[in-house]
Amino acid sequence: MGKTQLKELTNSIDFAATGNQMYRLVAELYPICRSITGNGVRETLNKIRSIIPLEIREVPSGTRVFDWEVPKEWNIEDAWVKDSKGNKIIDFKKSNLHVLNYSVPIRKKVSLGALKEHLYTLPDHPDWIPYRTSYYQENWGFCIRHKDFVKLKEDNYEICIDSTLQNGHLTFGEYFIQGQLQDEILISTHICHPSLCNDNLSGIALASMLAAHLSETNLQYSYRFLFIPGTIGSVAWLSLNEQKLSKIKHGLVLACVGDSGPFTYKRSRQGNAKIDDAVQQILRDSNGEVKIIDFSPYGYDERQYCSPGINLSVGCLMRTPYGEYPEYHTSADNLEFVTAENLAASFKTCINVFNVVEKNKKYINQNPKCEPQLGKRGIYDHIGGHSDSKNFQLAMLWVLNLSDGHHTLLDICMRSGLKFGLISEAADVLVAENLLKESSGESINRVVS
Amino acid sequence: MGKTQLKELTNSIDFAATGNQMYRLVAELYPICRSITGNGVRETLNKIRSIIPLEIREVPSGTRVFDWEVPKEWNIEDAWVKDSKGNKIIDFKKSNLHVLNYSVPIRKKVSLGALKEHLYTLPDHPDWIPYRTSYYQENWGFCIRHKDFVKLKEDNYEICIDSTLQNGHLTFGEYFIQGQLQDEILISTHICHPSLCNDNLSGIALASMLAAHLSETNLQYSYRFLFIPGTIGSVAWLSLNEQKLSKIKHGLVLACVGDSGPFTYKRSRQGNAKIDDAVQQILRDSNGEVKIIDFSPYGYDERQYCSPGINLSVGCLMRTPYGEYPEYHTSADNLEFVTAENLAASFKTCINVFNVVEKNKKYINQNPKCEPQLGKRGIYDHIGGHSDSKNFQLAMLWVLNLSDGHHTLLDICMRSGLKFGLISEAADVLVAENLLKESSGESINRVVS
Amino acid sequence: MGKTQLKELTNSIDFAATGNQMYRLVAELYPICRSITGNGVRETLNKIRSIIPLEIREVPSGTRVFDWEVPKEWNIEDAWVKDSKGNKIIDFKKSNLHVLNYSVPIRKKVSLGALKEHLYTLPDHPDWIPYRTSYYQENWGFCIRHKDFVKLKEDNYEICIDSTLQNGHLTFGEYFIQGQLQDEILISTHICHPSLCNDNLSGIALASMLAAHLSETNLQYSYRFLFIPGTIGSVAWLSLNEQKLSKIKHGLVLACVGDSGPFTYKRSRQGNAKIDDAVQQILRDSNGEVKIIDFSPYGYDERQYCSPGINLSVGCLMRTPYGEYPEYHTSADNLEFVTAENLAASFKTCINVFNVVEKNKKYINQNPKCEPQLGKRGIYDHIGGHSDSKNFQLAMLWVLNLSDGHHTLLDICMRSGLKFGLISEAADVLVAENLLKESSGESINRVVS
Repeated sequence: MGKTQLKELTNSIDFAATGNQMYRLVAELYPICRSITGNGVRETLNKIRSIIPLEIREVPSGTRVFDWEVPKEWNIEDAWVKDSKGNKIIDFKKSNLHVLNYSVPIRKKVSLGALKEHLYTLPDHPDWIPYRTSYYQENWGFCIRHKDFVKLKEDNYEICIDSTLQNGHLTFGEYFIQGQLQDEILISTHICHPSLCNDNLSGIALASMLAAHLSETNLQYSYRFLFIPGTIGSVAWLSLNEQKLSKIKHGLVLACVGDSGPFTYKRSRQGNAKIDDAVQQILRDSNGEVKIIDFSPYGYDERQYCSPGINLSVGCLMRTPYGEYPEYHTSADNLEFVTAENLAASFKTCINVFNVVEKNKKYINQNPKCEPQLGKRGIYDHIGGHSDSKNFQLAMLWVLNLSDGHHTLLDICMRSGLKFGLISEAADVLVAENLLKESSGESINRVVS
Repeated sequence: MGKTQLKELTNSIDFAATGNQMYRLVAELYPICRSITGNGVRETLNKIRSIIPLEIREVPSGTRVFDWEVPKEWNIEDAWVKDSKGNKIIDFKKSNLHVLNYSVPIRKKVSLGALKEHLYTLPDHPDWIPYRTSYYQENWGFCIRHKDFVKLKEDNYEICIDSTLQNGHLTFGEYFIQGQLQDEILISTHICHPSLCNDNLSGIALASMLAAHLSETNLQYSYRFLFIPGTIGSVAWLSLNEQKLSKIKHGLVLACVGDSGPFTYKRSRQGNAKIDDAVQQILRDSNGEVKIIDFSPYGYDERQYCSPGINLSVGCLMRTPYGEYPEYHTSADNLEFVTAENLAASFKTCINVFNVVEKNKKYINQNPKCEPQLGKRGIYDHIGGHSDSKNFQLAMLWVLNLSDGHHTLLDICMRSGLKFGLISEAADVLVAENLLKESSGESINRVVS
Repeated sequence: MGKTQLKELTNSIDFAATGNQMYRLVAELYPICRSITGNGVRETLNKIRSIIPLEIREVPSGTRVFDWEVPKEWNIEDAWVKDSKGNKIIDFKKSNLHVLNYSVPIRKKVSLGALKEHLYTLPDHPDWIPYRTSYYQENWGFCIRHKDFVKLKEDNYEICIDSTLQNGHLTFGEYFIQGQLQDEILISTHICHPSLCNDNLSGIALASMLAAHLSETNLQYSYRFLFIPGTIGSVAWLSLNEQKLSKIKHGLVLACVGDSGPFTYKRSRQGNAKIDDAVQQILRDSNGEVKIIDFSPYGYDERQYCSPGINLSVGCLMRTPYGEYPEYHTSADNLEFVTAENLAASFKTCINVFNVVEKNKKYINQNPKCEPQLGKRGIYDHIGGHSDSKNFQLAMLWVLNLSDGHHTLLDICMRSGLKFGLISEAADVLVAENLLKESSGESINRVVS
């Protein structure tokens, strides 16, 4: 079909350029005031459509989704606080973080004391505006720099939140790439945060660009990308798509993937799913500092994908995890906190992980009794010409030794300690030489007990 | 029935007072010369009856119990050694450790050389009297301070051991508390040692006070307390009660629980029994220094409970284990070696362990698909009001996530790293909100492979 | 039959003398130019026949053995290089390593440049001659000291390799000792290397002497010794003896066992085979430094025995492994590199391993309910008289406790941490006292769940 092989994608992609593209998308989406519903989400999804032909779906307020109900839609035009002289001392136009997300409309005059009950600050970081929400409890409020808070004087303040909270829709984006198999890989990223770059414009940009490249690639698996508001979005999607769940074999939640911290992988609830092995292997192969953490029912939408009645093989790839960097959920999670280079490295990691999942097959050694004679087939020439000939020879021997119908390439990779790329390349050469055949379920019988 | 819930026991008990009560019992029992049979055991059990209505049982000498035979009963009135001038140089009245326990009666004159063949001392601890026994090989002897031993001069010594060794009975105490279940928890402690406080008046006092408190508590399990002479007592009880063994689901041997060493838990032979998990969890939750050791067929009566044809889920809770403190089996294991505080802490640990075993059920999440919406049920108010609100919220999420019919609360506790108390409390709230139901054997089906 | 028991062999053997015997055999075989075929192998096997009545087998060139074909037979009379003045500057008679093993015959005059293309040296070890082969690619060459190489001047050199490469046979030795069982233990050692002592005259000497001693011993298992050329020898033997493979229950490849490095054991492909447990236990019991490494499909003939379609329980015992000592495959692997003491220690280790495998049975405790009363049977006299009485008593208790039909003596050994000798001795005493009986498959039923 003229499409690239996924394996070759890593060679053909200009990662630096891809990183720049992702960064530009982050910058473009940065000013929009998003929430779990509303026009900010629609605008965001529409901009992503310049990259991939995303389907935009809407679920009406009040729709029952498992134990939840789709909330009223929230939109906001403006919000400010003026002192008695008419000076805007808090202005939504300057930063959409200034308003408590999902604030109900309000316009009234209040004393300093009354105002303070609705102000949120970060005393430890007086220059930063905090990000706060109140989705399921009607409230209003402003988030401001602590250094401004302490300067507030007794006065008669006028407050205005020009928002609406009424029946409407929950909006999300979905993009499906048909592979050769009906089996799917799910990629999910949350789109509900306003002007915060790492959490989670980075995830949005990464998912968008992955989708763009995978759509031009020959794929075994089908890939389903979800751009959804946190929690209510995944709850809604799962509720409305229960019949599709059995096709989802592997999945990743992408979040906080643009900062400069080392990669962190949070395992699926199952803990030993193939996606867990694959990500851990790729991170190990990278030789960089990485952090592998166990599943816990706190975090992003993996909470829902890994709830006991859903229990999908979905892990979460991050750099610095939620709550573990001071800039988290503050105005300091800005365009300087993420870089094109970090986004590019996250992109590459995902492509490598998908390559493992796609290539992770079981093979059967066609000459299982003793080693085949590699020399007479000229395989030592393949080996000799390899840049890492010693390990490539070992990879050949490992693949032959463990291709008994019980071990996938990933299993062989983990047992041998060799990189997946080498193992996979060795398998390709051995298949070409008819020494290896993809397993159709049988295994080599001789196991001496 | 007006009884306290076990869970609330820890709040209502005055631990300091309980520690003092235990210490007083130790002090009261200290002077009695106990052995594996005889009046010292009877007197000890009678004193315990002032605390709990113990049943005192007697097994005749000569009774065959598995591979063993109940020995002759031993009693002693007095024992001494006089020099040729009539001075008592060794006197049983001063310490019952002075006589080799189970010494046959003897009265004769001997030279220093002949006497020395029957003297036991501790050269490394010249101020301490050793404790020695000769139950199954007829013999006589005296145990003395090494500093006195070295002063002994050539002389004609008169020795007297005014003991009897004749057909009689093996005596032990048993106390049964009926719970709601026929399933039992066995608590066993040895009562055969004379004036030694940690080994094992501490265990006797602890078992007595546990029994006293549990008898006033609402219990799931039935509890069976055994106050028995070491080895022959457990062999006899097991032999005479084989038909009851299948009801014993968990058990603890209590010994050496009054010294100031860190807790030591010796696992059951099975190694991963629920009692093993429960004790380890409680010791871990205590944040103190603890020592977990594997089962070995050397020690106290767990040797018998964990013999291959019995194989009960019985571990052994100690502070410093047998043989690992210099005072062990010497006169230095005295009233100064144990404290009310240490006894109280051991008591509290046991109560906490029983609470885990009692509360360790499987539940089924009634909203297993995605998380239930806790907010609309006001559960966040429960959480917000909790002294450890962050961990209490995590406990809720963990209990919901793992209550799939495969995990008990203890399993959830171990996987989450949270304290059992929090997990159990979270389960109670969720049950009250109908989000959780005790498992009747079913499990949540969806497990994606 | 008047044969020694294997267990007693360790007491009756003069290890120092056996070490000297092995060293003398190494020295005697050292000068012979061996290869994977040819008269050097025949001469070597014939000399071993002075120790054991080895059967010498021949497989014709061209015989198909699995994916391989038995190669032409190589023999060599002489080889040299002369300078234009007729001085022999390289002389096979001085060291058979000087010729590239399997060099085709050649006689011609060449320039220095042309000669250099066929010379092999070790620049990092200028005093040593490397060992090189070209079995399956026709070639010729010389291996020389780098310090001689750098002195070579422009000249007209005459070269002569007086070898033959023609149809003949592959030769190997086989020695079978019939034990009481049809089940076999396989011992395999490679015989294809010329004047190299550790790799692998040490293995040849060790296997020979083990065979000599085992043939005079009462054995449970049958033992099969193979003296074979590396790779092609094991491939040929496995191919020609497939019907025998199911009898091989355990096996060891012996190589590099004469140097002074610590023992290295490379596990079988299965990783937890009984032979793996046995060797690891014996090495642990030795209290010396040891190295346990996982199977990898690179090394000696375990590559073939552990290929997926063969998958025998065969590990590899070495001291310093292949490639991990600088003398490996050089003229420095000479008679000074191996010692009689090291060979003797390797011999002793193997005997101890065989003893474990022979004695590793399951027993059933005949008094499984509580401990049997050891005292009344006088077993404490056995214990008291033992040089390590404390551990011997523990060994008794462990054997009684775990002899439930589920644990072998080796399992008990590993769980208890006691030496196999003690455990096995304890079992013997308990069997003699009718407290233990060899398992005929049944197990003690009571396992409380």
